[in-house]
Amino acid sequence: MSGTGRALKRLVVGRAMRSDKLGDTLLPKKLALPIFASDALSSVAYAPDEILLTLGLAGGSFAFTHSWQITLGVVCVMAVVVASYRQNVHAYPSGGGDYEVATTNLGPKAGLTVASALLVDYTLTVAVSISSGVQNAASALPAIHGHEVIVAVFLIIGLTAMNLRGVRESGSFFAIPVYLFMLGVIALAIVGTIRKLTGDLPLAESAKFTLAPQPHMDTLGQVALVFLLLRAFSSGCAALTGVEAISNGVPAFKKPKSKNAATTLLLMGSLSVVMLVSIVTLANWTGIHIQDPDHPGNLLLNGKPVAHYNEDTVLGQLSHAVFHGFPPGVIFLAIVTGVILVLAANTAFNGFPVLASILARDGWLPRQLHTRGDRLAYSNGILILAGMAMLLVIVYGAEPTRLIQLYIVGVFVSFTTSQIGMIRHWNRNLRAENPPISPARMKRARVINAVGAVMSGTVLAVVLLTKFTHGAGYAVAAMVVLFALMVQIRRHYTRVSEELQLAESADDQLLPSRVHAIVLVSKLHKPAMRALAYARATRPSVLEAVTVDVEPEETQALQEEWERREIPVTLKIIASPYREITRPIIKYVKTIRRDSPRDVVMVYIPEYVVGHWYEQLLHNQSALRLKSRLLFTPGVLVASVPWQLRSSQGHEQDYDGPRPGSVRRGR
Amino acid sequence: MSGTGRALKRLVVGRAMRSDKLGDTLLPKKLALPIFASDALSSVAYAPDEILLTLGLAGGSFAFTHSWQITLGVVCVMAVVVASYRQNVHAYPSGGGDYEVATTNLGPKAGLTVASALLVDYTLTVAVSISSGVQNAASALPAIHGHEVIVAVFLIIGLTAMNLRGVRESGSFFAIPVYLFMLGVIALAIVGTIRKLTGDLPLAESAKFTLAPQPHMDTLGQVALVFLLLRAFSSGCAALTGVEAISNGVPAFKKPKSKNAATTLLLMGSLSVVMLVSIVTLANWTGIHIQDPDHPGNLLLNGKPVAHYNEDTVLGQLSHAVFHGFPPGVIFLAIVTGVILVLAANTAFNGFPVLASILARDGWLPRQLHTRGDRLAYSNGILILAGMAMLLVIVYGAEPTRLIQLYIVGVFVSFTTSQIGMIRHWNRNLRAENPPISPARMKRARVINAVGAVMSGTVLAVVLLTKFTHGAGYAVAAMVVLFALMVQIRRHYTRVSEELQLAESADDQLLPSRVHAIVLVSKLHKPAMRALAYARATRPSVLEAVTVDVEPEETQALQEEWERREIPVTLKIIASPYREITRPIIKYVKTIRRDSPRDVVMVYIPEYVVGHWYEQLLHNQSALRLKSRLLFTPGVLVASVPWQLRSSQGHEQDYDGPRPGSVRRGR
Repeated sequence: MSGTGRALKRLVVGRAMRSDKLGDTLLPKKLALPIFASDALSSVAYAPDEILLTLGLAGGSFAFTHSWQITLGVVCVMAVVVASYRQNVHAYPSGGGDYEVATTNLGPKAGLTVASALLVDYTLTVAVSISSGVQNAASALPAIHGHEVIVAVFLIIGLTAMNLRGVRESGSFFAIPVYLFMLGVIALAIVGTIRKLTGDLPLAESAKFTLAPQPHMDTLGQVALVFLLLRAFSSGCAALTGVEAISNGVPAFKKPKSKNAATTLLLMGSLSVVMLVSIVTLANWTGIHIQDPDHPGNLLLNGKPVAHYNEDTVLGQLSHAVFHGFPPGVIFLAIVTGVILVLAANTAFNGFPVLASILARDGWLPRQLHTRGDRLAYSNGILILAGMAMLLVIVYGAEPTRLIQLYIVGVFVSFTTSQIGMIRHWNRNLRAENPPISPARMKRARVINAVGAVMSGTVLAVVLLTKFTHGAGYAVAAMVVLFALMVQIRRHYTRVSEELQLAESADDQLLPSRVHAIVLVSKLHKPAMRALAYARATRPSVLEAVTVDVEPEETQALQEEWERREIPVTLKIIASPYREITRPIIKYVKTIRRDSPRDVVMVYIPEYVVGHWYEQLLHNQSALRLKSRLLFTPGVLVASVPWQLRSSQGHEQDYDGPRPGSVRRGR
Repeated sequence: MSGTGRALKRLVVGRAMRSDKLGDTLLPKKLALPIFASDALSSVAYAPDEILLTLGLAGGSFAFTHSWQITLGVVCVMAVVVASYRQNVHAYPSGGGDYEVATTNLGPKAGLTVASALLVDYTLTVAVSISSGVQNAASALPAIHGHEVIVAVFLIIGLTAMNLRGVRESGSFFAIPVYLFMLGVIALAIVGTIRKLTGDLPLAESAKFTLAPQPHMDTLGQVALVFLLLRAFSSGCAALTGVEAISNGVPAFKKPKSKNAATTLLLMGSLSVVMLVSIVTLANWTGIHIQDPDHPGNLLLNGKPVAHYNEDTVLGQLSHAVFHGFPPGVIFLAIVTGVILVLAANTAFNGFPVLASILARDGWLPRQLHTRGDRLAYSNGILILAGMAMLLVIVYGAEPTRLIQLYIVGVFVSFTTSQIGMIRHWNRNLRAENPPISPARMKRARVINAVGAVMSGTVLAVVLLTKFTHGAGYAVAAMVVLFALMVQIRRHYTRVSEELQLAESADDQLLPSRVHAIVLVSKLHKPAMRALAYARATRPSVLEAVTVDVEPEETQALQEEWERREIPVTLKIIASPYREITRPIIKYVKTIRRDSPRDVVMVYIPEYVVGHWYEQLLHNQSALRLKSRLLFTPGVLVASVPWQLRSSQGHEQDYDGPRPGSVRRGR
C-alpha cells in the first residue's frame, strides 16, 4: 500500500529534485516570446468568434460589413496598449508589473484594486482558454462534442498536477507549440490568400446558412446597432489579454533586460495583429456564419431554422476550408491551437502564485503564501486557482462565449490603473532634480501613457456598459469581495503586530522562577518511556507523570506496571467522573498555576509520527485537542515528544523542484 | 464580529451546561415507551403505502384483495421478532444489543457484520423518516409539494444542530408527540370504524381512480405475481425497524430493568400491530389507490391516464376521508405524524454515536470516537450521519419509496445474526454447571430465538431476492465497504500497539546526556521574548536563538535590535539561499544531532493562540509545517510556546451538555 502510494505520488507529483538544479538561467528573446506570449497569441483562437457571433445577432450580412471596423478598433487598442507597456517595461524593470506601478504611484488602494482584478482575471484565463481549447479540439475530434465540460475539467486537473509537479516553463516543451501555432496560422493566411487570388478558395461549412436577426433587433434601430457594435468590440478586446505578462517578467530576460522585454512586447503585439487581421479577412472571404450559443435558432438553411448543428470555431472552419483536400493541415492546426490554449491557461498557473506571493509579502494575503521556498505555499495557490476555474467551467458549461462576458474587465481595470500610475510616475520624475533620462523622452512617454490610459479607460467603460448584465457584473462583484477580504487580512496583521510590539523597558525579559514538568501517560509503551526520559533529561524543578482515570481497570494496570518497573517518577492519577480527558488535565494545570503563579508548567505529550494522512486520523486526536486547549492557558508550554512509527519512514522528504512562475521571475 | 459570532454559536449550539446537571435519571416505562418506540411506531406512516403501491403495480383490485395477506405476514414477523427480543433483553441486560450478542456468541466478525449493517441502517432511518415526514406534512401543507428535498435537508440540518446542542431525549418534548401520534391514529381507527358501521365513511380522494397494470404485468403470470407479493411483503417489513432499539437500551430502564424493558417491547409491538392493521383496513374501506412514483401514468380516471396528480400518503388520504368535515383532525394528524417521523430520525442521531463509540472502544473505529466526555467525538459522528443522510435524501429526491428499497436489509442482517447468536447462547448456558435460570425456560427461549432466526433469515432472503437490483444492492455494498474499513483500522491499531510494546529489559529508560535548546526567532516581539524566557528557565546545557536569513534587511534589523537590547543568548543566523524556512532548520538540527547523538534537541517555537479558525489560517502556518517536519527527526522535541492574542479570550471554553444517546444508555 505504502509502496503503491509512493509510486502513485511520484507519477503525479514527480521525483524530488535538488534545488541547485534550478540554476539562474535567464531567457533569451526566442524563449521569452513563446513563454510570455502564449496567452496573448492564443486569444486569436476565440476573439474572432466573439466578434462575428455578436455582430451576427443583427442577422443578415451585418457581420461581414462590420467585422472589419471592429477588428480595426481592436488593432488600434492593441497598438496603444503595447506602446504604453513598452514605457512600463523601461520604467519598472523590477517586474512588479501593474500592481507595483499602481501601488508606487497611486497608493496601496489602487494597487489592491489592480491585484483583485488580476486574481479574478487569472482564474478566467484558465476557464476561457481551456474551454476554447476544448472547443477548437472538437473541430478535429468530433467525439468531444457533448463532453466539453468533462474534457475541460480533466485538462485543468492535468495542468494542476503538472504545476504541483513543478514543470519549468523554459523548456522546448513550452516553446515549440507556440512557434508551431504561429506557423500554422501564418500558413493558413498565406495558403488562404493564394487560393483566394487563384479563385480556388472553398466556402466555409457555415457559408450555406443565412443568419436571421434576433426578434427584437430589427425594431430597435440605430441605437441598438451601435450598442451591438460596442459589445462586439468589447468581446474582440479579449485579444489583448496577456499583454501585461511581459511587464511582470522583465527580470527573467537576458541583458539588456528592459530593451529585450520591450522588443519582445512589440514582436508579440505585431504577431497578434497580423494573426487577428488574417483570420477575420479569411472569415469574410469564406463566408463564415457564427451564431450565439445562447440565442440558438437564428441559423437558417433555405429560410428554415436549423435544429441541430455542431458549430465549429472560426479557426476550425477556416482550416477545413483553406486546407480542403489536405487533412493533415486541418488536424495539425487543431492540435497546436488546443495545445497553445492549454499553455495560455498554464500562464495563469504561473502568474497567480507569484502575484499571491507579492500580495502576501505586503500583508494583503496570508503570510504563508509568501514563503517562496515552500511547496505548500504554491500548492495552495494552485489548488485555489484550479478549483475556481473548474467551478467556472462547470457553471458555464465550458462555453467560451459565456465566460468571455466575465473576462477582460479585470485586465482593463489593471491596464487603466497602471497607465494612470505611469502618468504620475513621469510627472514626479519630471519634477525630480537629476532625472535619469531626458525630459523630452519622459514627456513623450507621458503622452503615450496618457493615450494608453484614455484608451483603456474607454474600453473598460464600454466593456462595463455592454456586458455588465451579461456576466461582467459577477466579475466586478468577485473583485470587490477579494478587495474587501484583503483589506481585512492586512488590518488583522497590523492589529496583531501592534499587540505584539515590545515595550522599550526590559520587563519582557523577566524569567519564570521554576519549571513544573508533567508527562502525560495513558499506557506504558515506548513513546511514553521516551517522553519520560526526555522530561527527566531537562531536569525540571518538579517532575510528575499524570494519567487520567477514564477506565478504572486500565488505570490500575498502568499503576501496577509502573511499580513493577520501578519508574523513578511519581505517577499522579486524576479522577474523571465523566470519562473526559481534556478537562481534568486543564483543571489540574490551572491548579498548579494558581498555587505557584511564577512557575512555568511544561506539559510533555507523547505523539505518534505517521506516514499517511489517514493514519493521522487514527492517532494523536486526543493529544491534538488537549494541546490546542492547553495553549489557551497562560504560563503553559506544550512539548511534543515524537515517536516515529515505522510507517513514517521515507515520508519525511519534501519536494524541491522548480516553483510555478520561477522562470518568469528570473530568479 | 467576535460578539456576533459567539451569539450565533450560542443560538445554534446552545449555552454551555454543567455536567453535574446531567444526573443519573433512569426511565420509567411511560417515558421509555415514547423514547424507544418512535422509530418503530412511526413506520406505520410509510409501511402501508409501500404495501399498497407495490401491489398496485399489478393493477386493478389486486391491492385490495392481497393487502390483507401481506399485512398478516408482517404482523406474524413482528410477533416473532418481539418475542425473540424479549429473550435478548433478559439474557443481555447490559444494553450491548445485537452487536454484543453477535460478538459474544459468534465471534468478532459476526459482531462487525451486525455493526456495519446497523451503521448503514441508522443512516437510512434518518433519510427514510425525514422523507416520509415531509411527504406526510405535504398532505396538510400543499405548499411543500415540489420542495420536498429542500425541506428534508433543512430538517436534517435542524436535527443536527439540536443534537450538537445536546438536547436530552427524556423530556416531555420527546414523549408528548409520540403519545399524540398514538392518540391520533387510534382516534382515526375508531372514528373510521364508527363511520363505516353507520355507512357514513366517505371514499378517499384516490378512490375515483382505477389502476392500470404495468405493461408487462398481465403477461408474466403467476410467478410474477408471487414475486410482487414477496416484494410488497419486504416493503411492509419496514414496520419492524426500530424494534431492536429497546435491546440496546436496557440499562436506561428503571428496575427491574429487564422486566420493564420486555414489557415495553411487548407494548410497542402490540401498538404497532394495532396501528398497522387499522390503517390497512381503513385504506381498503376508503378505496385508496397508490401508484409507484417510479412508474407513473398507471393511474386512470375514466379509463384515461392522469397526467399530473400530487399523491398524498395513505395516512394523509385516510385522515382527509375519516375526518371529512373536521379539518382540525386532519391538520392535527399531519402535524403529529410529521413530528414523530422527525423524532424517529432523531433516534438514529442517538444510536449512531453510541454504536460508533462501542466500536471505537473495541478498536474497529478511530479511538477518538470512544472518548465519551468529549463533545468532538460525538460531533464527528453526528456530522458524518447527517452528511450521509442528506446525500441520500438529495440523490433519491426525498422519495421514501425509493429509499425503502435500500432500507431494512441492515435491520434484518442484524436480527438474523443476533437470533443465531442467541441460540448459541442458550446452548452454552444449557451445558453450564449452574445455570442461573431453569433448563426448561432456557429451552423454551431457545425455541423462540430459533423461530426468530428462521423467520428473520427468511425475510432477509426475501428482501435481498426482491430488492437487490432495486437498491438493496447499494446498501449491501455500503456494508461490505464499512466492514472492510473497520477490519483495516483494527489491523492498523494492532500493528502499532505491537510496535510500541516495551521490552522487559530497562533499555528504554536510558536518559539522554544533555539538552541542546534552540529558540526560533523571526522578529523580536512579545511571543519571541516569552519563548526565550521560558527556554532560559529550563536551564538547558546549550541555549541558542536561531533565525533563518530569508530577507537580509529583516535579518540585519533583528541582529541590531538583539544587540541593542543586550539579550543574553547567542543569535545564530542560518543562511537560506532559496528563501526557505523549514529545510535550513531541519538541516541545522540534524547537524547538531550528528555532532552529539546522545543530546536531545529541544526546539522552542513561539505560537500565536487565536480565537477563530480563520485567524488560524493567517498565523502559525510556517510553524505548523516546521513542526510536522521536525517531528520526523529522531531525538528532537518540539515545545510550543503559546502567546495568547486578545482575540483568543473567551474562546477557550468547551461545551459540556448531554451527549446524544446518553438517556438511552442509562448513564
